This record gives sequence, structure tokens and C-alpha cells, in this order.
Amino acid sequence: MRGKFSVVGKRISKLDAVELATGKAEYLDDIELPGMLHVKMLGSPHAHANIKRINTCKAEKVPGVEKVVTLKDAPKIPFNPGFYYMDPKDKYIFDKKVRFVGEAVAVVAAVSEDVAEEALDLIDVEYEKLPEVLDPEEAMLPGSAKIHDVERNVAAYVTNEWGDIEKGFKEADHIFDDRYTTTRQVHAPIEPHACMASYKSGKLTIWSNTQIPFHVRSILAEIFGMPQNKIRVIAPFIGGGFGGKDEVILEPICTLLTLKTGKPVKLKLTRQEVFYLTTTRHPCIFELKTGVKNDGTLVARHIKAIVNTGAYASHGPAVAGSMGTREIGLFKSPNVKFEAHTVYTNSPVAGAFRGYGNPQHSFAVESQLDAIADKLGMDPVELRLKNIIKPGDLNPGTSNKLMSNDLKECIVRARKSIGWKQKLNNPGKDITKKRGVGIALLMHNTGAYPYIKEFSSAVVKLNDDGTVQILSGVVDIGQGIKTTVAQIVAEEIGTCFEKVSISPPDTEFVPVDRGTYASGSLYIGGEAARRAAADAKVQLLKKAAKMMRTKIVDLKVENGVISAKSKPTVKKSIGEVVGEETIIGKAAYIPPSNAPVFGAQVVEVEVDTERGDIKILKLVYAHDVGRAINPTIVEGQIEGGAVMGLGYALTEDLVLDSKGRPVNKNFTDYKLLHATDVPNIQPIIVESIEPTGPFAGKGVGEPSLVPTAPAVANAICRATGARIKELPLTSERVFKTLKNMID
Amino acid sequence: MRGKFSVVGKRISKLDAVELATGKAEYLDDIELPGMLHVKMLGSPHAHANIKRINTCKAEKVPGVEKVVTLKDAPKIPFNPGFYYMDPKDKYIFDKKVRFVGEAVAVVAAVSEDVAEEALDLIDVEYEKLPEVLDPEEAMLPGSAKIHDVERNVAAYVTNEWGDIEKGFKEADHIFDDRYTTTRQVHAPIEPHACMASYKSGKLTIWSNTQIPFHVRSILAEIFGMPQNKIRVIAPFIGGGFGGKDEVILEPICTLLTLKTGKPVKLKLTRQEVFYLTTTRHPCIFELKTGVKNDGTLVARHIKAIVNTGAYASHGPAVAGSMGTREIGLFKSPNVKFEAHTVYTNSPVAGAFRGYGNPQHSFAVESQLDAIADKLGMDPVELRLKNIIKPGDLNPGTSNKLMSNDLKECIVRARKSIGWKQKLNNPGKDITKKRGVGIALLMHNTGAYPYIKEFSSAVVKLNDDGTVQILSGVVDIGQGIKTTVAQIVAEEIGTCFEKVSISPPDTEFVPVDRGTYASGSLYIGGEAARRAAADAKVQLLKKAAKMMRTKIVDLKVENGVISAKSKPTVKKSIGEVVGEETIIGKAAYIPPSNAPVFGAQVVEVEVDTERGDIKILKLVYAHDVGRAINPTIVEGQIEGGAVMGLGYALTEDLVLDSKGRPVNKNFTDYKLLHATDVPNIQPIIVESIEPTGPFAGKGVGEPSLVPTAPAVANAICRATGARIKELPLTSERVFKTLKNMID
Repeated sequence: MRGKFSVVGKRISKLDAVELATGKAEYLDDIELPGMLHVKMLGSPHAHANIKRINTCKAEKVPGVEKVVTLKDAPKIPFNPGFYYMDPKDKYIFDKKVRFVGEAVAVVAAVSEDVAEEALDLIDVEYEKLPEVLDPEEAMLPGSAKIHDVERNVAAYVTNEWGDIEKGFKEADHIFDDRYTTTRQVHAPIEPHACMASYKSGKLTIWSNTQIPFHVRSILAEIFGMPQNKIRVIAPFIGGGFGGKDEVILEPICTLLTLKTGKPVKLKLTRQEVFYLTTTRHPCIFELKTGVKNDGTLVARHIKAIVNTGAYASHGPAVAGSMGTREIGLFKSPNVKFEAHTVYTNSPVAGAFRGYGNPQHSFAVESQLDAIADKLGMDPVELRLKNIIKPGDLNPGTSNKLMSNDLKECIVRARKSIGWKQKLNNPGKDITKKRGVGIALLMHNTGAYPYIKEFSSAVVKLNDDGTVQILSGVVDIGQGIKTTVAQIVAEEIGTCFEKVSISPPDTEFVPVDRGTYASGSLYIGGEAARRAAADAKVQLLKKAAKMMRTKIVDLKVENGVISAKSKPTVKKSIGEVVGEETIIGKAAYIPPSNAPVFGAQVVEVEVDTERGDIKILKLVYAHDVGRAINPTIVEGQIEGGAVMGLGYALTEDLVLDSKGRPVNKNFTDYKLLHATDVPNIQPIIVESIEPTGPFAGKGVGEPSLVPTAPAVANAICRATGARIKELPLTSERVFKTLKNMID
Repeated sequence: MRGKFSVVGKRISKLDAVELATGKAEYLDDIELPGMLHVKMLGSPHAHANIKRINTCKAEKVPGVEKVVTLKDAPKIPFNPGFYYMDPKDKYIFDKKVRFVGEAVAVVAAVSEDVAEEALDLIDVEYEKLPEVLDPEEAMLPGSAKIHDVERNVAAYVTNEWGDIEKGFKEADHIFDDRYTTTRQVHAPIEPHACMASYKSGKLTIWSNTQIPFHVRSILAEIFGMPQNKIRVIAPFIGGGFGGKDEVILEPICTLLTLKTGKPVKLKLTRQEVFYLTTTRHPCIFELKTGVKNDGTLVARHIKAIVNTGAYASHGPAVAGSMGTREIGLFKSPNVKFEAHTVYTNSPVAGAFRGYGNPQHSFAVESQLDAIADKLGMDPVELRLKNIIKPGDLNPGTSNKLMSNDLKECIVRARKSIGWKQKLNNPGKDITKKRGVGIALLMHNTGAYPYIKEFSSAVVKLNDDGTVQILSGVVDIGQGIKTTVAQIVAEEIGTCFEKVSISPPDTEFVPVDRGTYASGSLYIGGEAARRAAADAKVQLLKKAAKMMRTKIVDLKVENGVISAKSKPTVKKSIGEVVGEETIIGKAAYIPPSNAPVFGAQVVEVEVDTERGDIKILKLVYAHDVGRAINPTIVEGQIEGGAVMGLGYALTEDLVLDSKGRPVNKNFTDYKLLHATDVPNIQPIIVESIEPTGPFAGKGVGEPSLVPTAPAVANAICRATGARIKELPLTSERVFKTLKNMID
């Protein structure tokens, strides 16, 4: 697998770099259809209420209003807005009750957004208010109001255990018992969610900035009882997703309206709506009881998680499941019990979000590990090295052997880069400015196998001028997957990158693909494309061997030219060999594994002990990525993830008031890090050979976000002694913690 | 091959029947792009002139005019507007001279058609007039003005011979020597030619009502030096083509303008422009010298054709070649010499047109055969039966053995249907209304192999709900090919028709296909799709056998359900077997033959001997179609072709004045038959088994048009004795001929 590559491993500019940089890329908002209606949604002012009556008469009479739809107009088919096959299916387009503030109760299609908004004001809804349940622990109490028809508002209970924790705790020299809480981070993609729908002659066409076009197709087929080949889903340019566009939120509404009006419709969320109508990261509570030996060996771990999924289950059960299988494996213990309750509350729906439960879990586990190291007087790195999963160990997610794991190398390189040993116990001489370093590790999946059905497929067409066209459903949400897949195909065929192009995701034409999630687009969609290219190449070589009167093994393809070792003067271009009998390569692919990736993140902070201010001086992230198909893109993912992780660590949280109303639903009050807040980030690529990945590649989309918050928390603690167990790690919390320590 | 079919052979409504009937089908004129410019062309008033100077200053200053392009702006790359690989390449977007009236010398892109037209009036062109050469025989005289840089204006000389005609004529008992002339028929599609182009971020997108999207792609790649994968050609609904949309006329102009303006552009021809800016049928002159024995056996044939290709060669040489190989084989003779000159004149360009030279050739040959029968006192049917090509004979076009040929059956059934024997020598008792029957036969190609490169390919996707999506480049121009291909795929897979859908032709996604021409879409594109379906089915059965624990041979697929003979209770739907590991079938196909089709057309006419009026009483056409995949569609093609053939026979001719200016460029003066002019047409489908065709199918798009004119001419002669050797067979010509016979 190691070898000399022509295209793989090269720092090639993104295929769409110029379009993106010059503003020419066409996003959904740039697409207009003739006669198109604009859609606005009326949201509930209450977090929990029955709908008694909706009167839309006045709204319907507003000139320019084409249609107002409510419960009575919509199919009564439940679905899970996460994935097609995900359970429970607890969501309807409209239901008899509302479960969070802003949930749509009526939707207007009109000739303009202004007219639609005018009509919204004239819709009269009578609510019967129900007690809002906002705290997940309260939600689980016996007397709590029921949000869905399930006991104690528990959408799912997930458990996983091995060994005997009681026995383990008895053997432990020390037992640590801590509670950690995490926040409601939002995805905040630069491009708001939007959808356009058109129904003509029995064919529904959806334009959506979705990460999962084929899931959109399947879910709409399910809700509206349509065959899949009568639904076409097109994903244009997408301005960021981070999992937030992994949910089918707007497409059913737009479908309903285009069916009812016979006209094309467009619905785009306002920035405010994006905050509460799309999904968030799951706020979690962890009770972590850990038993260790004096030498730092973990002997018993009891992890209890409460996963606040908000008003609907969506990805909530799967997020809990993910923590309870894959993530607990990073640090080994003979006795483990994991329990998680995924709990409904009357808050915005939580869903898939870069990291998928791992950032929450990592914050708890890695924070506590540092506390343990502290107590045992160990170097936190040494404590980790003693307990981490090793090459050849079983992947706790799949029970397959780990094929590639250079975690140790990541730790060594990250530690060296930050100057760990000099800085570990050296907060500096400045009394009010204390410095510290902190570490946290990462194990994450590449793809969601075997928890979620994983699949991709691709077609590779060779043209008679030697150019190559890939038909693939991989969805580029800005991360550069199209470029990476084109590199893979160019390498596999043996031609230069410029000759290769890749189609937009369009379910009418491209074969099925899972979409973009779980860091799996390269590993699954890229491998499908590589196999389709390999299939095309076999056909190319067969044909060339015949034309060149030699054997396939005698041939090689380099830079688009086919030559025979035995006949150095005979060369043919790919185009010549293709000719009019075109060559079509194809592959359908289900991955055999999920190929975990590993990483080590180290941060250095400076804490103002008088004000609580935190300054991130440096962030190093060493990441075992398999092979970096395009190092620039890999580094972009590492850097982008780290910045998002710093936001999660330091500032981000969508706050609800006591009635469940989002308070800071705008970019003034919801604090994303600004460019000037971003520290020196040093990505370190550690290459390992993952035999199941395309050219040994694994996923890099999510991981660097995961260990950031605990690494920062650990560094703060190392600098000041303040152990903060709640996110975000605000100046205020640091200040108060330091003050409490003094008091 | 004979067998019981579920979908093949069924009279299924066209997939798009409702859209077409309700006006919802989207044609090019229905598509708008934001900021789109409208394009108008300035045509030369002269048939032949050098361009000395063009001043566009005033035009450029008209408010709303975005760009005026002329010779100086265009690439100097010659191309053949027919097919990509066709020779000679004698056409430029703009040239230093004009060669026919209306040829574009400047093109304006403006915010509206009105503004563009206003600007056209302000373009000042100085011409140096050259002598116009309109008559092809004069064009070949040594002193004639040269239209292109070729001797005697001969674009191509095509010849084919075998035996020894001098020896043959010596052996003949009778020699017939006749001259026949044919006319300039136009395609007159209901939808005028149109093109839209957009260039964004290095990618050119063309929307064109073209029959040949992949040829458009290749020709544009050639002219503009672009790789094929940077050009996307989309063909929306198309309102008729008949070969007239087999030419790349508007696409290069639109490409040039979108490149120059950076905006999308649309160019649609007016009805008048369609008459002279698109192609026509080649007017031909035939000198036919034929030697026969007393018993009617043909012993020598010398055919000299002059094919008037107009201002550019386009398909002209290929049309001549087609006559000289395939068509001469219908009637056998041991000694044959065919010679054709394809000649330039300063008239509208002639190009591909339903029949592709065969209607012209057939008019001459079949008219003379009747004259021979008359002279020999033979039944014209008997004379033909004596000389026709027989099953097992070599296909004169390919030198392959004929695999399917039920011509004799066609003759027998057509003759019976019209009541031939009773009517043959029975003009009736009415002195002024004479009746007659006439026959003409047909041999035509299915596809253009081996003269033109023939190829198609397809991808068949199976969805997990059992629906099937075909990616095919076959172009439906109204003939119903999409429906037919969907039937073939449904039959091959073993599912019902409703489960199958087929993509629009879009070069971005579908694999290469030759396009729609030469009656080959079913035979080539349909077979490619069938093979792709067969490939998908093999994969389906393999997977099913594994799931159902049986062997592939034990399985059958009917109506979308897979069952095992050995386990009658175990059944699986296609969708269940497909699951998330999708199935993709694919095929690239080059046909091994062109599988001629055969037919016999008989018409009965009534001629008003005082006025010359011709009334068609009945038209019977028996057609050996291989297998009729959809008999309704086959009959539609037979009927539509016969009506076009009657127009060719009786009324249609684009007339030029002495300066080469088209006189009757509108539907008032150019006489298409009206619905009320259409007689009783009886299509008779004769099925034969063509082993190289998909489910034994052959082509039916062109043939029924071919023998109509000579059948009518023969019937008129049989009724009145008037042998008319010039098309169209107008009342005036009948009247004059009858008058001359009396005088």
C-alpha cells in the first residue's frame, strides 16, 4: 500500500476553489424557478402545548397568498428526521401538539416572503398550554409531563457492559466520582438551511442543501407514498453542514406545499430560525465513577449519561449508543458499565453534530483522567499511555481487530511539539497570568458501521478524449470531498487530476450513497469511487492489451498514457483506447469496518487569575489519518474542527429561558469565535496504513473537535488548579472557581 | 427468441403522454435562466458574396445590446455540422464569404429579442457579390464560380460497382434510360430549433433541442478546445426532429456568445429561419439506365446521381454513399455501377432527413421499375418479386448475411389488403375520375453501421424499493423511444413497466450514446439499455441466490418478484434483494450490423383527369420491423412517416428564386399536408426475428416515408398512363402531362 503516488498525497487546490473564492458558486438561494412561491412558517410561542384550533381564513385572504397548510393538510406518517431507517419515528410534518418553542404549526406559501410573513400574523392558533419540561433529570421524574407517549420521557435507554464493575471497584486503590455537564452548541453553518421543491408530471424534484440526498429521497417516499424513481433530490453547493444538514426538516414541508399548490416553492430559514428549528448538539450530563490502581491502571469504569435530545429523538439514541461502544474503548478497563438515557425535553431538537456524542463524552472522561493523574502524582500523558487502546486490540465498536492505530506516535509528536515536559508543571512566574498545558486524546469512527447502514456506489465514465467523469453521491459541504474523490480516481486510473471531474449529487443520475456524515465520505464514498475507477481501468487495460497486442500485466498507465514494458515505443492515450465504445466502471460498496482514527491534542493556555480570562496560546493536534489523500484538505479539517472545538470549550451555548425560549439566537449573543480569537494551530499529520480505506485513507471530518474542550479544561487546571466540570469554560466560571478555591 | 413477454409487445401509453397532451412538457422555450440574453442573427441577403467589411459600432451602442460578434470574434476551426467525425469539415462559425441567402454574418446578444433585432438593422455589411450557383449540374461545369475550394464544386464523388455493366447491357433484351428529379423538402418540426448556453466556472452548459447531444459535445470541444468533461449538453423535450436536429447549427454561436458575455444566452429560430437556416432534404437528379431480360430479370443497372448538398457538405457525401451501397441492394443485379456527385450550390444546406437519400433513390428506381413492368406487360408486383433481395442474401451494406427479411410477406399482405389483383388494371368507368394502384418496396438500414461510427451505452440502477432507473442518452424527439427502452428494460429485468423510469439525455451523467438518427435508437441505444439491464439482473440473481440459499438457475423474476422453483413459498421482491448495497448494471455497445428492415407500400389513388387533382384513397404499408416492442408506437411511426411521404410526393418543396432566395418560407406557401388531407392509412406489422436486435427489434423511424412517392407516382400512372418523373406530383404536373399525352 505504501508507494509512489502521482495524485494522491498532493496538495491540490479544491476543484471549486475559484468559484468559492470569487462568489460564483451557486447556492440554493441563487436558484430561482419561474412562478416560484416563497414559504414562511408559523412557530409555536409555547414549548409544550396542545393545539385546540387553527383559523387560517384571514391569512388565506391576503392577496398573494397561495396556500396555508396545517395539520389537516398533511400526511399522518411518522418519520425520523435523522436517517430513513432510524428509530424511533416520532415526528410528523404537523402534529396535534407542539413540543418546543418555534415548532411549526402552520406554513404559508405566497408570492413573496413579505406577503407570507404578513399572512403569518393573521393565523389564529388556540393553544392549550402544557407544563414545559426543560431539565432532562426532571423530565425523568415520575410526575413529569409526558412529551411523547413514553414512560418518564425516555426515548431510549442504552447500556453496554463487560467484566464486573462491583468487583473492579473493590480492587481499586482509588475511586473517583464526578459529574460533568455539557452545552447546547449549534452548528451555525454560514449558509442557512433551505429547500426548494417542484412537482411536475408525477415527478417531485427537491433542491436541498442536505448532507443526505438519498435519505431525503427515502423519507419523502415514505411520507408521501411515492416510488423512489419519481423523486429527484439535487444538492447544490452547500455552505457548511457539520451534521446540521443531516436532518430532513424542510423537505417534507416543501413537498407538501408544491403538491398542494402545483407550483414550485422555496423555503429558506432566517438566521434566527436556524438556531432553533434545526438541530443542536446534545447537552449531556455524565456521572463518572472510575476505579484505579496506584500505578494508574483503570480497573473499573461506571459511566452514566443523560443525553438531552430535545423535543424529538432524531439521532439521540444513536449518539448515546456511539458513546457506549466506540468511545469507551479508547481507555481500556477490564470492568466497564455504560448506561445512557436519551431523554425528551421541550427544547430544540438535538441531532447529528460533528463528533456525534464524542465531544461530550471526551470532556467528561479526559477531564477526570487529569484529575486522576493529579491525585496519583502522575504525568497525565503517562497515565494515558498506560491505559490507551493499542494496535492489534479489538475495535470496541466492531469487535474487529484494529488495523491501523498510530495513537502513540500522535501522543509523542504532539507532546514534543508543545514542549510538554518543560511546561507541564511550570505555570510561570507572573502571579496574575498563569500558564498551563493540557492534553486529551481521540478515538473516533470513520463511518458508522455497524450501527448505521453504510453504503455507497459510483460510476466512472471514460470519454474518448481521455477525460474522466465520476458519478458519485458524495456531498461536498465545503470540506473538499469532491476534490479528494477526484484525486483517488485520477490515481487509480493513472491520469492527471485535471482530466477528472465529478458530478453534483443528484439522485436522478448518481447511484446511491449514504451522504456526508460520520467522517465517512472518503472512507466509503471514496472507496466506492476508487472501485468504480478500478473497474474502468481493468476494462481499459483489456482493450489496450488487445489493441497493443500485449498482455494486461505488461501495461501501465501513467499521466493518461498507456505503455507496454515490452514495447517501449508503443504508447496510446486513454482517449484512443476508449474510442467510441465507451468504458463505464461501476461499484457498489458496503464497508467491512469503520476504521477508527486516533489523535492527540495538546493546548497551552494562559489564564488571567484576576479576571478569569483564558487565552489559548497554542493548539497542537496530531492526527492518525491513515493516508492524507490531500494534506491541505486534511489540515483544513483539523484546523476548522479545532476552532469549532475551541468555541465549544470556551463560549458556545444556546441558552433557553425558563419557558424554553431561546435567548441568544443570533450571532451577537451566541458567541462564535472570531478569526482574531483563533490561536496558533499546528496540525500534525501522522500517516498509518488502513488496509480497508481508499489508498489507506481514513476520516478526518470530525475528530479534531472532540478533544479540544477537555484539553483546554486540563490546561486551565494545570495553570491554576481550577477544575471546571461544566461547559463552556467561560471567564466567569474560571473566575468563580478560582474565587471559591480562595474563599 | 419467440416467447411470452410481459411488457415487450404491449401497447403501453408513452411515458410522457399526459405531459405532452396537457402541454406540461418543458421545451427549450419554457426554460429561462436569470440574466439571460437573447440572440438574433443577421443573415446575408446574397447567396454568394465575399464580406469586405462589417461595421457594428452603431449596433453596439443600442441600449440593451451586450455583444455583437462577427468573423473577428470567432475561432477559426472548421467543423462538419453533421457529425463530429464526418468529413469534409468545411464550415466555420463565421467565414470570409457567405454561401447561401440568410447565412449568418453577425450575431447580436441583447436583453431582449426586440433590442437584438433593432441592433441587427444597424449593422453595416459591405459585400462583394459573386455569381450565385444554384443548379447542381451548372455548378459542375468547368467555368462555374467556386463555392468552396474544390474542383467543379464537387464535395464528394462516391462510386460502387460490381460485375460488368457493359457486358450486362449487351445481354439485356430491353434497356431503359430515364431521368428523375426530386425536391427540397424541409423537416418542418413543430418546435423550431433553439439553443441556450451558459458558461460558469470553467463549465459550459448547453441546452439544445438536438438529436445528437454527444456529437454537440464533441464538436464544441473541437471548436473551442475544451475537454469533454467541461461541456454539459442537455436535451429537454423535443418537438420533432426528422434529422433536422441532427446538425450542430446554433450551439457554436451560443457558446461563442456566452463565452464573450459571461452571461447565459438563448437563441431560438423563427419559423422563417427554420426554413432556410436549418437543413433540407437533398434535391437529387438521377440518370437511371437499366437492362432487363424479357422475363423481367435485371441484368445491368447504371445509376448516376447528382446530390445537391447546398452551401455545405454536412451529410451530403454520406447520403450519396448510403444510396450507393444499402439502397441499391433491394433489387439484385449481377452488374451494377453506382456513381454520385455530391455538389455544392448556393442554396440552403441539405442534411440528414428521415430516409437519408433513400426516398430520392426509391422514387427513381421504383418509378422506372413500373415503367419496365408496363413495357414487359408484367404485374409490377411480379417484376419486383423476381428481383428482390432474399433471406440469406448478403446485406449489400455490410456484406453480412441478412438475418431477418420478411419482405415477401410484406408484399403479399399489402397486396391483399388493397385488393391488388382486382384493381391493378381497372381504372374505373368514370371518364374524368380514374383510379389506380401503385406499389413500391423498401429496404432501409437500422443504424448506420458500418458507414458511421455507431455506439451506445447505458447504466441501469436498481433502487431498494424495487424501482429501476435507466441512464441513457437516447433522445426522444416525440417518437416514443424512451417508452420503448423502458419496456425493454422492464422485460429484461422482469418487473412491471410502471417501476421503470428513464433519465433525460444529459451528457454530464448519462454514458455516451450516438443520438437519434438512422432509425437506430432502439436497435443500438435500446440494446445497450437491455444489456445494462441484463448485467443488473445477473447481479440481482446472484445476490438473491445467496439470500434465498439456492442457485441462480433455480430463480425467476416476474412482476418484480423473485421466486425459486425449488422453494415455491420463498419469494423476495427486487427491492428486498437490492437493499442498501445497490445494484448498477452497465453496458457499452457497438452494434455488429445494421439489420435492414423491409416493407411494401401500396396506395390507391383517384385522379381527376380534367383538373389533374390527385386524391389518395388508401395507403397500406406492411413493414417488417423485427419485433414490435410497442405496436402502437410502431404504427405511429408508420403513419407519421407515410404522411410525410405523401407531402414529399404531392406538395412539399422549398422553392428558391433566381437569386437563391427562398420563396415559400412559411406554412402558408410551403404546403404541408393538413390533417384533413391524410387518407386512410393501414399499417401492417410483419414481425420477423432479428437476432442482433433487442428482443429482435429493428428500426421503424424512417422507412414508411421512403416508398410513398414512387407508390403514388406508380398509382397515378396506372390510373392515367401519366408517368411523372419529377417531384412533387402536383395537380399541375399531372394536368400538363395528361395534356401532353393528348396533344
